[in-house]
Amino acid sequence: MTYSVAVSGASGYAGGEILRLLAAHPDIEIRTVTAHSNAGQPLIDHQPHLRSLRHLTLQDTTPEILAGHDIVFLALPHGQSGQYTDALGAVPLVIDAGADHRLTSDQAWEQFYGGHFHEPWTYGVPELLVGGRKQREHLVGATRIAAPGCNASTVSLSLAPGVAAGVIDPGDIVSVLAVGPSGAGKSLKPNLLASEILGTANPYAVGGTHRHIPEIQQALAGAGGTDIRLSFTPVLVPMSRGILATSTAPIAPGVTDAQIRAAWEDAYGDETFVQLLPEGHFPRTADVLGANTALIGLAIDRNANRVVVVTAVDNLAKGTAGAAVQSMNIALGLEETTGLTVNGVAP
Amino acid sequence: MTYSVAVSGASGYAGGEILRLLAAHPDIEIRTVTAHSNAGQPLIDHQPHLRSLRHLTLQDTTPEILAGHDIVFLALPHGQSGQYTDALGAVPLVIDAGADHRLTSDQAWEQFYGGHFHEPWTYGVPELLVGGRKQREHLVGATRIAAPGCNASTVSLSLAPGVAAGVIDPGDIVSVLAVGPSGAGKSLKPNLLASEILGTANPYAVGGTHRHIPEIQQALAGAGGTDIRLSFTPVLVPMSRGILATSTAPIAPGVTDAQIRAAWEDAYGDETFVQLLPEGHFPRTADVLGANTALIGLAIDRNANRVVVVTAVDNLAKGTAGAAVQSMNIALGLEETTGLTVNGVAP
Amino acid sequence: MTYSVAVSGASGYAGGEILRLLAAHPDIEIRTVTAHSNAGQPLIDHQPHLRSLRHLTLQDTTPEILAGHDIVFLALPHGQSGQYTDALGAVPLVIDAGADHRLTSDQAWEQFYGGHFHEPWTYGVPELLVGGRKQREHLVGATRIAAPGCNASTVSLSLAPGVAAGVIDPGDIVSVLAVGPSGAGKSLKPNLLASEILGTANPYAVGGTHRHIPEIQQALAGAGGTDIRLSFTPVLVPMSRGILATSTAPIAPGVTDAQIRAAWEDAYGDETFVQLLPEGHFPRTADVLGANTALIGLAIDRNANRVVVVTAVDNLAKGTAGAAVQSMNIALGLEETTGLTVNGVAP
Amino acid sequence: MTYSVAVSGASGYAGGEILRLLAAHPDIEIRTVTAHSNAGQPLIDHQPHLRSLRHLTLQDTTPEILAGHDIVFLALPHGQSGQYTDALGAVPLVIDAGADHRLTSDQAWEQFYGGHFHEPWTYGVPELLVGGRKQREHLVGATRIAAPGCNASTVSLSLAPGVAAGVIDPGDIVSVLAVGPSGAGKSLKPNLLASEILGTANPYAVGGTHRHIPEIQQALAGAGGTDIRLSFTPVLVPMSRGILATSTAPIAPGVTDAQIRAAWEDAYGDETFVQLLPEGHFPRTADVLGANTALIGLAIDRNANRVVVVTAVDNLAKGTAGAAVQSMNIALGLEETTGLTVNGVAP
Repeated sequence: MTYSVAVSGASGYAGGEILRLLAAHPDIEIRTVTAHSNAGQPLIDHQPHLRSLRHLTLQDTTPEILAGHDIVFLALPHGQSGQYTDALGAVPLVIDAGADHRLTSDQAWEQFYGGHFHEPWTYGVPELLVGGRKQREHLVGATRIAAPGCNASTVSLSLAPGVAAGVIDPGDIVSVLAVGPSGAGKSLKPNLLASEILGTANPYAVGGTHRHIPEIQQALAGAGGTDIRLSFTPVLVPMSRGILATSTAPIAPGVTDAQIRAAWEDAYGDETFVQLLPEGHFPRTADVLGANTALIGLAIDRNANRVVVVTAVDNLAKGTAGAAVQSMNIALGLEETTGLTVNGVAP
Repeated sequence: MTYSVAVSGASGYAGGEILRLLAAHPDIEIRTVTAHSNAGQPLIDHQPHLRSLRHLTLQDTTPEILAGHDIVFLALPHGQSGQYTDALGAVPLVIDAGADHRLTSDQAWEQFYGGHFHEPWTYGVPELLVGGRKQREHLVGATRIAAPGCNASTVSLSLAPGVAAGVIDPGDIVSVLAVGPSGAGKSLKPNLLASEILGTANPYAVGGTHRHIPEIQQALAGAGGTDIRLSFTPVLVPMSRGILATSTAPIAPGVTDAQIRAAWEDAYGDETFVQLLPEGHFPRTADVLGANTALIGLAIDRNANRVVVVTAVDNLAKGTAGAAVQSMNIALGLEETTGLTVNGVAP
Repeated sequence: MTYSVAVSGASGYAGGEILRLLAAHPDIEIRTVTAHSNAGQPLIDHQPHLRSLRHLTLQDTTPEILAGHDIVFLALPHGQSGQYTDALGAVPLVIDAGADHRLTSDQAWEQFYGGHFHEPWTYGVPELLVGGRKQREHLVGATRIAAPGCNASTVSLSLAPGVAAGVIDPGDIVSVLAVGPSGAGKSLKPNLLASEILGTANPYAVGGTHRHIPEIQQALAGAGGTDIRLSFTPVLVPMSRGILATSTAPIAPGVTDAQIRAAWEDAYGDETFVQLLPEGHFPRTADVLGANTALIGLAIDRNANRVVVVTAVDNLAKGTAGAAVQSMNIALGLEETTGLTVNGVAP
Repeated sequence: MTYSVAVSGASGYAGGEILRLLAAHPDIEIRTVTAHSNAGQPLIDHQPHLRSLRHLTLQDTTPEILAGHDIVFLALPHGQSGQYTDALGAVPLVIDAGADHRLTSDQAWEQFYGGHFHEPWTYGVPELLVGGRKQREHLVGATRIAAPGCNASTVSLSLAPGVAAGVIDPGDIVSVLAVGPSGAGKSLKPNLLASEILGTANPYAVGGTHRHIPEIQQALAGAGGTDIRLSFTPVLVPMSRGILATSTAPIAPGVTDAQIRAAWEDAYGDETFVQLLPEGHFPRTADVLGANTALIGLAIDRNANRVVVVTAVDNLAKGTAGAAVQSMNIALGLEETTGLTVNGVAP
């Protein structure tokens, strides 16, 4: 069968990537695209790369217009998805690319986002270790899915195997991420202008204020960690897409190098989209551009007494839209890889 | 008076930047430029931006050609400077931009570089805290100066105040650096091709193998630290110049936020070229492009129990050639800021 | 049926893109990959983005190893393909991504390339107007195909409709192209280093020396032009992929704006992969990144008395590998669009 | 003596570059900086690279605040400078970086800008040929100066020697420019976002609509041309600064290659800031980054019957602020090169 889909926030970057992936998905019919402030305009004016969808016109983002589809994707600014939840009660599958339904702790929500707290939905990171199993199991048959934050899922996938296996200490994690500006959305902010990004590296949310921190803590707690502490610093660099996360954590006392490496091998050895590279190999974001792949390189630095995990993800693909489509496939009982690519577009 | 200068390695990036700075220096006459494999060619063919020096021709890099100047700059690949040392005995001031004379430990040299160990020269980072004073004092009247490694001096300047004041624990430092490819020199390596760097972030020397690690340990030991341990990961990003170093270290027990901040304020409050930004402000590499300035942003993350120091440096300027020229000024008794700029070229 | 394929030059950029497209092609089995100087090494070490092909090992590029496949792709430096032609006589379909079999004039070959002249093969630009019809017709059942030069096909597709319709004068064409460095291949040349490309625009082959000039003249002659003269200037800009060609030609006397626009509409109105944008719209290279699409914007400047055609192409995709695979599809009688995408990866 | 200066539009890119240059000028005291919408804020918050000016606070842009200085720089959006003209009557020297006082034709102003026409001021391109002499002569003692449009002065300097010498036909010029986004100012427009510029080339104002066209026509008419026609296409590329203009014009009948080359040699042989490169050499924008230099490469393509001139300029430096400061120096009778650099910041 073919599923009818509506995508809200279709003029933005996350919405555009969801559309790009769905346009290549054999089981999906993109019926409706919405964008509040650009309603009435051709989609192609906002997504000039989506040539196969140039027949579509943006509609207003209202519950009425979104309802009546088999699947609805919400790619709205944080805090806006919640208002559609009730009105979309009859929609069989709703996937939110925003943050509204990710956190289980209303206290963390209040501290990092503020405003009305919404109930958590099934978290859309299939390969994540949760209680010794994979999050994939929870996605089978799910009807409400919260796609992850791109930085959050990158760091969580990086460290969950080590946390679950007890080979690293989650109490003193340090993550520094080189990120492209598309993760910040199509926002008219001075610091996102090309002249401010080209030729320079620019840190932001330094010192523990980034909103993805509680999401990582939640994920690693799910993997089995306790008292998770995280120094998290994202750095904007001049690439349109991509996250390269360098995450380190202390080596747990007494564990061997083989035990450490085995934790990641066991976790991801059978996965298609999350791959551990051989010893001494580390990924580039170019290797996953446009792909649904997370590539992980692992080093053990005994002098520093730290495991170093370097993970490359395309923030819009595996980090957001790819995670959403992969989760959709699982929820619907389709082949998990449908419409998704493993190979990046490089150079 | 005017000092006559010879610059070796003049066709490379470090040599080119030394020449760019010296060309604007009122007390310097650039008399000789050398480059072994390109001898006989016009300098301008290799440094097309140095229009004011288009009358110069590259000569061979021999001790005879370098001797007979008031000052000689060596900008050669690591391991090559040492062979000129003896032959340049009569040159009043020699400044090495390579690594050969930086390390005091022959054991560290053997482990990270290998080959013949050379005696350490006066380290060319004037603002570095050494035994409660500044390295500047050691540079006055110096005749042999080792310009720093760009990554090393960036991290050392970032953390030395905290180490010296005892407000951070140097036993568990984590530094992750976004760096531009010019730091790797004009080397014909596949991973430095534009197609491999554009649009992507690329880690290297992951897991404790980077050659600047012992140099940082040495500097922080000089600042007063003991048992310094460092997880160090550089990430190549698509900007020609620049280092943005994010360095974190555990907060020492019992210290207050005010004590922490005071450590950096006291260390750099009077400095021209190393500046601490106000609370909540963090630097971009664009802000120091072409300048001799290191800009430092400081955050205290009590949840992670870590101080986060973000420092921006132009790897070729303050990181290498600027440090060399500033050290030269001090050694010669000139005004320390002569020929150097505080303001970056942005956007 | 499934066709077995060998790809030579598999460690380079063109070879890598051919492999990326073939890996997504349902009718193709990639059986053999070769690369002379890297024989014996894993393909993944040279193409780390081709995760689905990480089981392949590079073999030597010999006629024996290439023979015995249904299809052979040659992605070798110019002048090297010819030596394999005779030995591959029994291979049903050979597609050359190099220049060796593109030119029909041995005189033009001698002037721009030099060395042994090889017979021309069927030119792999299906949408090109040739004698009032499309080149596609010549590709049906072809057994030897010359994929185009990326710059050449971009300019030829830009102007052929106007030449064929007689609405522009091909005697005074001016084309200036912004191009990414991947078009120059994975060559260890100083001017292709990242530090030389980042943050700068760099012209090359200025003044009529670029090797794609005779290929464009040949294509436009095929479209119906006579006495074709072309000022052609490529400019390297800091993007890994992409060609943005701005081509202008004098408006033929007496033609109306409607006639001009109709020439392009008639030529490409039914095409999937070559699309004319609406009036006032012009393409970006991002819109075609990774896609097999050429997007064309057309302006009529009566003050300058020139038609201006701006065309965006991914040099590795539609410019090289996409043209090769599209031509292969036609030659084999497959659906022309199989394994190729219309939508670019943006932002 | 030291001249007191006020700079309006000080939070923008042109204003920032004027400040950067003036901060290094020994005869200038920057007394006042203004920016209408950001009045009351520290300058350093908007120009974080201007560390030496961190003591300055932005004031409102009013005639009262600007008056009372020796020199006033206006770096305001087009159409806004005119309102200050009358009120600044007592200021000895006013330099406008906007377009308001550049054009001599009210008809051209109406067509390309619209709104109130202002009287032309002395044009700030000292090296431009005007009636067989240099514009420099008109700048001596000038009290009202219009700094040029960056694209306009680049193209005008490129072609004026050939027009003045009669060796090219100005009736069919084609110019295509690779330009960085800083030329568009710090404007919050979607197409100037980093995600829209990184990794892509993007044409704009295609087909004869760019506002710099009449300025070029005016300059080349001043150089001696008649019936000047110009196809002009700018292309945004991912570099923060820089213009690389490729300009071609038909070779005039009967002239020799030597005559052509002599035209440019004669025009610029004695100039410091406009330099003709040797035959076969062409400039990169990196070579002039931050410098007041225009570098020109010249090719003669007899097959295309066109002269090709490739010129590199830093749009903010020589293209705007450098031209303003150089013109100021001339107007005040200072050494013309004071505060300006010839060497670019590369790589």
